[in-house]
Amino acid sequence: MKRVFMKINIVVILLIVLINGGFCFAQSPATIVEDFKPSSVNQPGKEFPKVNSEGRVRAQISAPEAHQVQLDIGAVKYDLVKDEKGIWTGESAPQDEGFHYYQIWVDGAAVPDPGSLYFFGAGRWGSGIEIPAKDQDFYTLKNVPHGELRDVHYFSASTNSVRHAYIYTPPSYDKDNSKRYPVLYLQHGMGENETGWGNQGHANLIMDNLIAEGKAVPFIIVMENSSVKFERPREPKPVPRTRDDFAGEFKKVLLNDLIPFVEANYRVIGDPNHRAMAGLSMGGMQTRLITLANPDKFSQVGMFSGGSISMDDLTNTPDFKKNVKLLFISYGSRELENPRGGSGGDPKANTEALKGAGMNTHFYVSPQTAHEWQSWRRALNEFAPLLFR
Amino acid sequence: MKRVFMKINIVVILLIVLINGGFCFAQSPATIVEDFKPSSVNQPGKEFPKVNSEGRVRAQISAPEAHQVQLDIGAVKYDLVKDEKGIWTGESAPQDEGFHYYQIWVDGAAVPDPGSLYFFGAGRWGSGIEIPAKDQDFYTLKNVPHGELRDVHYFSASTNSVRHAYIYTPPSYDKDNSKRYPVLYLQHGMGENETGWGNQGHANLIMDNLIAEGKAVPFIIVMENSSVKFERPREPKPVPRTRDDFAGEFKKVLLNDLIPFVEANYRVIGDPNHRAMAGLSMGGMQTRLITLANPDKFSQVGMFSGGSISMDDLTNTPDFKKNVKLLFISYGSRELENPRGGSGGDPKANTEALKGAGMNTHFYVSPQTAHEWQSWRRALNEFAPLLFR
Repeated sequence: MKRVFMKINIVVILLIVLINGGFCFAQSPATIVEDFKPSSVNQPGKEFPKVNSEGRVRAQISAPEAHQVQLDIGAVKYDLVKDEKGIWTGESAPQDEGFHYYQIWVDGAAVPDPGSLYFFGAGRWGSGIEIPAKDQDFYTLKNVPHGELRDVHYFSASTNSVRHAYIYTPPSYDKDNSKRYPVLYLQHGMGENETGWGNQGHANLIMDNLIAEGKAVPFIIVMENSSVKFERPREPKPVPRTRDDFAGEFKKVLLNDLIPFVEANYRVIGDPNHRAMAGLSMGGMQTRLITLANPDKFSQVGMFSGGSISMDDLTNTPDFKKNVKLLFISYGSRELENPRGGSGGDPKANTEALKGAGMNTHFYVSPQTAHEWQSWRRALNEFAPLLFR
Repeated sequence: MKRVFMKINIVVILLIVLINGGFCFAQSPATIVEDFKPSSVNQPGKEFPKVNSEGRVRAQISAPEAHQVQLDIGAVKYDLVKDEKGIWTGESAPQDEGFHYYQIWVDGAAVPDPGSLYFFGAGRWGSGIEIPAKDQDFYTLKNVPHGELRDVHYFSASTNSVRHAYIYTPPSYDKDNSKRYPVLYLQHGMGENETGWGNQGHANLIMDNLIAEGKAVPFIIVMENSSVKFERPREPKPVPRTRDDFAGEFKKVLLNDLIPFVEANYRVIGDPNHRAMAGLSMGGMQTRLITLANPDKFSQVGMFSGGSISMDDLTNTPDFKKNVKLLFISYGSRELENPRGGSGGDPKANTEALKGAGMNTHFYVSPQTAHEWQSWRRALNEFAPLLFR
């Protein structure tokens, strides 16, 4: 009986495919391209999860006693299918190029996939996967001179605690002890922390590659956790409730503790002309609020999927236009297809207006990506060569 | 019917407790001390897992559709119990002080606990928990000058690839650019990697605290992944099959690539008198093989739960006694209660014989711990003050 059913199903599927003249069903196994390879961010020796050339994710987990196992990626849950050994396997629809968070559901329990490496996002350490990107060369680990990502502890008087930061020093840093460097303060997004730009963003590899090709001036990058004293839900609201609520506590840490610590302990050029701030999503909004409130402290500003600067902002803060030598605004193309507002109004119109007003403003759109890390890796790769020129 | 059964069960349990006159069942809820606190290595904001003053672990996970959920710690699986909301909760027997790996089983799937931070051990990234230790002060993060744990990439000709290491530089390292430092090459155990000594071992915090108290000479620590080109099962065999099989590939990386890279790129004193090697478990056995085979390269040697040096070794390698100025052997007390052999024979007898032969040999036993990280944290804390004197 089962065999007859299967035969009928296959005939029906073939008929539908023929009638539709080659139309592909996202979910039909018949259409899946069988060229799956292990994800580049799998745990050592783990074969699953795998990714195929369409960008589909194939997950697999042993759960012999379970009755429902799902792969949860891109806000969609895909049922896995159990074999006779109790191993569950299944595929997602094609995903965009780049990095994505995901998880596995086993009989109602949301858990990390034991096959993947773990990354901090959405407020928790969980699974991540890489869909190979056509332009992945710029963040690939190569045999070039490498900088260091330094795991740093320092005392913050604002929080009365020892806090943690990552500091990227460029390859040349320890070679010439007389040389001093500019600094970029670079922030993560909501639900992420100071590990994001290194682990998911590959900020260190992007810089190593740019410096090796002579495309960027070597500079230091400081990455701290801007979620100071508050916990927020998964998705950022378009506009923070109050300025102090959103960026205030981190602003104190940044200006009163972190910048003084960095300038006292690293060979940096401690003036506004050599000090930049940028961030993604919530970090971009924080960059907007903090640099608008302190136009005497930063000369170069980047906001990745995190709002823009309007002409009204310039009117309210004339020193911003006077002091800021470089303004960089970026979004993923899919974000602009479905704009959800964002701090400061329409980013493209704002950027054009600022250019017209004579500000050195750049607007970058990451092709075929959404509010996700591939947009932000590309944004850093475009922003860094413009910095400290 | 179910209620009647539960009542009968409770009566039976109470009767058994009364009959046994106060005898404590490890598993009986009645005996559990209700002073549970979140583990210090939980993910941010996560309440579970918790630990009580007996060292019991209480795990909790939401799995509404599951029919069996277990906490798997110390090679024992403990059943969790489901409430009306589908949340499973349960406790382990008391665990030894210090760090332990564990996992959760959900209907036959072994997965990381979504509540804990993740650590690399047993060949995978998985859950870890801290049982507060009476002596935990020595590895506690304090407001003292902190060194850096540097995430370093370098090219290895032996493996023809860019490899990864962590390098600890002491707090003073960037203050005085004329000063040079001794170096300790410090290895992890089987199924672990270069992240172990920082994440689980707190080697950086142990050193920061020792240096702040003036108990140790500042030195650099280099931590690499010694699992080169081979994958092995979870538990180390007492004796490796062949020397080259076990330590040979890593020996090439260490001697031909890593040491030259470190000595060319860090301000180290590049002579054998200022070069030490130590390791835990497999890393101790590798230290034994590599330093015995290269007595001209290392003057200070530490083996933590990883064998010892015998009088026969000295006879076979006279230069080892001549060149090695400090030999440190350590074990957890529970390992010595149940000795499983180990490279080089009985460690205490060996150590006494070496002392008698005039070698500067130290033997340390970590109280009430087994083959686990608390033994190795303590070993480093005892070993470091002896180094480079």
